[in-house]
Amino acid sequence: MGLAVGRASRAGLNVITTQVGPRPADFADVRTTNLAVVLRYVRANAPCSRADIAASTGLNKATVSSLVAELIERRLVRETGLAEQRIGRPATLLVLDGAPYAAVGIAIDVDHLTVIATDLAGERLLSWHRAFHSRDALPGKAIASIAALAKRATTRLGSAGRQVLGLTIAVPGLVDPTGDVRFAPGLRWHDVELPGLLQRAMRRPSFQITVENYANLAALAEHRYGAHHVGNLAHLSGGGRIGAGIIAEGQLLRGGLGFAGELSHLLVDGSGAACDCGRQGCLEAVAGIPAMIKRLSPRDLPEDALVDGDPLDLQPEVEDLARRARSGEPAVLEELERGGTALGYASWVLASVVNPEVVVLGGHYAALARWLLPAAEAELTSRIVTADGEGANARCRLVASVLGQDASAIGAAARVLDTVDSGQVQTLRAG
Amino acid sequence: MGLAVGRASRAGLNVITTQVGPRPADFADVRTTNLAVVLRYVRANAPCSRADIAASTGLNKATVSSLVAELIERRLVRETGLAEQRIGRPATLLVLDGAPYAAVGIAIDVDHLTVIATDLAGERLLSWHRAFHSRDALPGKAIASIAALAKRATTRLGSAGRQVLGLTIAVPGLVDPTGDVRFAPGLRWHDVELPGLLQRAMRRPSFQITVENYANLAALAEHRYGAHHVGNLAHLSGGGRIGAGIIAEGQLLRGGLGFAGELSHLLVDGSGAACDCGRQGCLEAVAGIPAMIKRLSPRDLPEDALVDGDPLDLQPEVEDLARRARSGEPAVLEELERGGTALGYASWVLASVVNPEVVVLGGHYAALARWLLPAAEAELTSRIVTADGEGANARCRLVASVLGQDASAIGAAARVLDTVDSGQVQTLRAG
Repeated sequence: MGLAVGRASRAGLNVITTQVGPRPADFADVRTTNLAVVLRYVRANAPCSRADIAASTGLNKATVSSLVAELIERRLVRETGLAEQRIGRPATLLVLDGAPYAAVGIAIDVDHLTVIATDLAGERLLSWHRAFHSRDALPGKAIASIAALAKRATTRLGSAGRQVLGLTIAVPGLVDPTGDVRFAPGLRWHDVELPGLLQRAMRRPSFQITVENYANLAALAEHRYGAHHVGNLAHLSGGGRIGAGIIAEGQLLRGGLGFAGELSHLLVDGSGAACDCGRQGCLEAVAGIPAMIKRLSPRDLPEDALVDGDPLDLQPEVEDLARRARSGEPAVLEELERGGTALGYASWVLASVVNPEVVVLGGHYAALARWLLPAAEAELTSRIVTADGEGANARCRLVASVLGQDASAIGAAARVLDTVDSGQVQTLRAG
Repeated sequence: MGLAVGRASRAGLNVITTQVGPRPADFADVRTTNLAVVLRYVRANAPCSRADIAASTGLNKATVSSLVAELIERRLVRETGLAEQRIGRPATLLVLDGAPYAAVGIAIDVDHLTVIATDLAGERLLSWHRAFHSRDALPGKAIASIAALAKRATTRLGSAGRQVLGLTIAVPGLVDPTGDVRFAPGLRWHDVELPGLLQRAMRRPSFQITVENYANLAALAEHRYGAHHVGNLAHLSGGGRIGAGIIAEGQLLRGGLGFAGELSHLLVDGSGAACDCGRQGCLEAVAGIPAMIKRLSPRDLPEDALVDGDPLDLQPEVEDLARRARSGEPAVLEELERGGTALGYASWVLASVVNPEVVVLGGHYAALARWLLPAAEAELTSRIVTADGEGANARCRLVASVLGQDASAIGAAARVLDTVDSGQVQTLRAG
């Protein structure tokens, strides 16, 4: 993973790398890639000077000036009035501009859609929620709803003078590397070619549409904007299914087929609740939000609030659970303790396999974290002590997400910015 | 993870990268890094010409010639008599030389040490096993044994005219990033500063000593020299403990604290065998080699073959198990089927969390794979179908290691070669 960038050296070498091999695609457009390099540097280090960029990237000063001029022309970067005090001339400092641009992320939940747009710096431009009864609908109808919401958001951004750089969709299911959805049980989707279908439904917009796993994008959001600045992180969340998004050494861990992190049927309790899959004690059956709600509110739910016996709209149910827990209702506290223990075990499995520094309880779990965390931490700690003797691994912390239910949509917008950084700057219109 | 290497372009840019930031260490010695780049290229692509190297690395031809001259002088690379037919002059082809060098790996098992030395191309120079009764001994005595074996190997290599490039030790336990062993229960080690202690015991040899987790190095060996050329792979092995080594996108996954892959106490069967940890149905208790042997041979073992009730020398016991399975003994076949099912579940957990293309059953499991694999595959497949509906993820294959018990020592030697590749070529004496 090491990477080295060389400046002029005694042997006159100025290109070095620790990874080689024929990668012709990389040679396609050096300037485009360098524009992305400079943009990414400014994003991470603003305010900074042209000299800083040259020193850190190994690009020579004339080249940096030319690249910065182009980024300024495109309104991706702007000069601030500030000047650094240096030996010699004061340098003009650069910051991100990006006033004319926006990144859009849409997260699909079983019961609602969330759209969030940000500017280049990740500042939120809009954040809407909209009911979405996916299980009633065929994929075609669902896709029309998603396209309509995306259209509304991009129109709004357009009338505010912003160009949309891209749209990423967060889907709770198995997404293959092309963005096609192989299987999304909560949505009842099988082999839905979402990028192509959305392209058509949105009448081939000028920006790129990408699709990524819901849990992965939540983990990406936690990594970028969460409270814990660590390179190794796992994010556990669950509406219907329970998925983990994993960041390993700063990178999203997708696995060989892009399907990493699916934990719904992890065995957490040999004598635990029966699962829809036919087994007993699966994580989803013990600590899934719908399963816990069903056990606690068997008669409270009106018939039309259920689909296949699962509560359709989880948000009000979760709020109700939190209210009952606050009032100290013993059955609720017991249920959440049992769920917390199961989540603690799942966190231990994540800690054992990928060893993150932090496991984040997100999604609906964030709202219930006050009651889930103590049992989860106790289980994680006791498992770690069992496995590691003196608890060598005990520094794996369990925390609640501060992004909550919005994490996947935030991560989806962040994913758009990554794509821009990674060499697609040339697709932008000049501002 | 993308990486781009630029040649001269229209804007006169010749350094590009997709990852930037102040990384002053990388600027320390451009030539050293470039030597490593060329060496790695030759290692991966030999026989190859100087022109091939220039075309693929982006280094200019004069620079490549100068670097190759230095590598030839150091006897890391040599010219073959062969010449490629091209338009224009025929080119002299280069291959690895490395005749004067060796990489040494030592794997520590609870019952024996393995030392394997290879040349730069990974060809085996020596392979010795030696009994090692770790649990009788204090760490000091164990370290003296390891140092003695290392000394014998390096002396033998020295008298064959080879310089040792480095020594890597594979330890079945939690190894932190400095190489100190935090906890190795099979060896009864706590906080053993192995690199420093070995340095002293070996009287500060001229080469570097590194320490890495046993399971990680087995996975590295499978990735480099195993039968499956995939970028995402997990290796499951178990003497006493059961550990997974994970390669994700071609890189060893170490986790935030370097402790990824510890699966001994994974819950595999709620009504399974009692574990030493006090719980029931842990992977180690159901499918651990010592646990299976104890259940099948409760009276056969002489008292002095047991330490804390565990068989001390596993190899003959595993061979005996295989013999009894071959003769169709029902109790043995049942036990191995139960163990296989548990290993299949553990493989499914790995598939769910990190989604490798291949899970390799290694170590002692390789010798028993004929009986373990059918049940393991059935469990993995049924779990995958449960979780993925149509088995979208079913391409995760379960296979037996072809490297068997030697994998960790082979991986340890491979790790030395990686270090050489990564920019430490300048520490080599000229040949």
